[in-house]
Amino acid sequence: MTIFSRIIAGEIPCHRVYEDEHVLAFLDIGPLSDGHLLVIPKEAKAQIHELSDESAAAIGRVLPRLARAVMQATGATAYNILQNNGAMAHQAVMHVHFHIIPRIGTSGLGVGWNAGKLEGARAADLVSRMKGALG
Amino acid sequence: MTIFSRIIAGEIPCHRVYEDEHVLAFLDIGPLSDGHLLVIPKEAKAQIHELSDESAAAIGRVLPRLARAVMQATGATAYNILQNNGAMAHQAVMHVHFHIIPRIGTSGLGVGWNAGKLEGARAADLVSRMKGALG
Repeated sequence: MTIFSRIIAGEIPCHRVYEDEHVLAFLDIGPLSDGHLLVIPKEAKAQIHELSDESAAAIGRVLPRLARAVMQATGATAYNILQNNGAMAHQAVMHVHFHIIPRIGTSGLGVGWNAGKLEGARAADLVSRMKGALG
Repeated sequence: MTIFSRIIAGEIPCHRVYEDEHVLAFLDIGPLSDGHLLVIPKEAKAQIHELSDESAAAIGRVLPRLARAVMQATGATAYNILQNNGAMAHQAVMHVHFHIIPRIGTSGLGVGWNAGKLEGARAADLVSRMKGALG
């Protein structure tokens, strides 16, 4: 049981912004910028590949309106949505969470982008493997 | 009209992995790591705060299964999902897109995390503003 399950259960307080049957949104207490919001499923799964389609759809559905609320509350015009899976990918709390992180001046998410080039034979192999996995 | 609208229309080829009524997923041709996937709505909106609830839900719904496909195809056990809004937030193509970026060794998304501390009075003000915006 993570701290987010205890927040959902009301055992630990949060700065609650939004709640519905499947989703809870509250302010991050260690914000990267003003208005940094966390959006979590009530379903207790560590990573998004474990989450039910229903919970994932419910989160997706509210991202546009929560983004609008963050923009209106902060005046931000740019923002990142980030969802980390695994400690290697900077996940700290092992309950699925989406960050909505306003970009305000120099504050916000630091993004490192060291892009490579997709090679044709590897692309074909990846597409085949992914389609196979999707069934 | 962006390059993604032309890909959706079939005017420009892509390494297509998944498609349904609302969503298209294809390999990023400038990958940060092996298997870097793009997931886009067919609805042509620049940023997620402009997207319909229906399109946003449809994307959310397929993220778990696409993440599983990326993991199975690449062997990755960690990954980031990132969605950038605005040039200031590193958005390059002005059509909503979610990146699924495997973390494989040192390759993947670079994440800079300069966290602050949420101050109580500001938190109360932000919650009030966001709830007001949500109506």
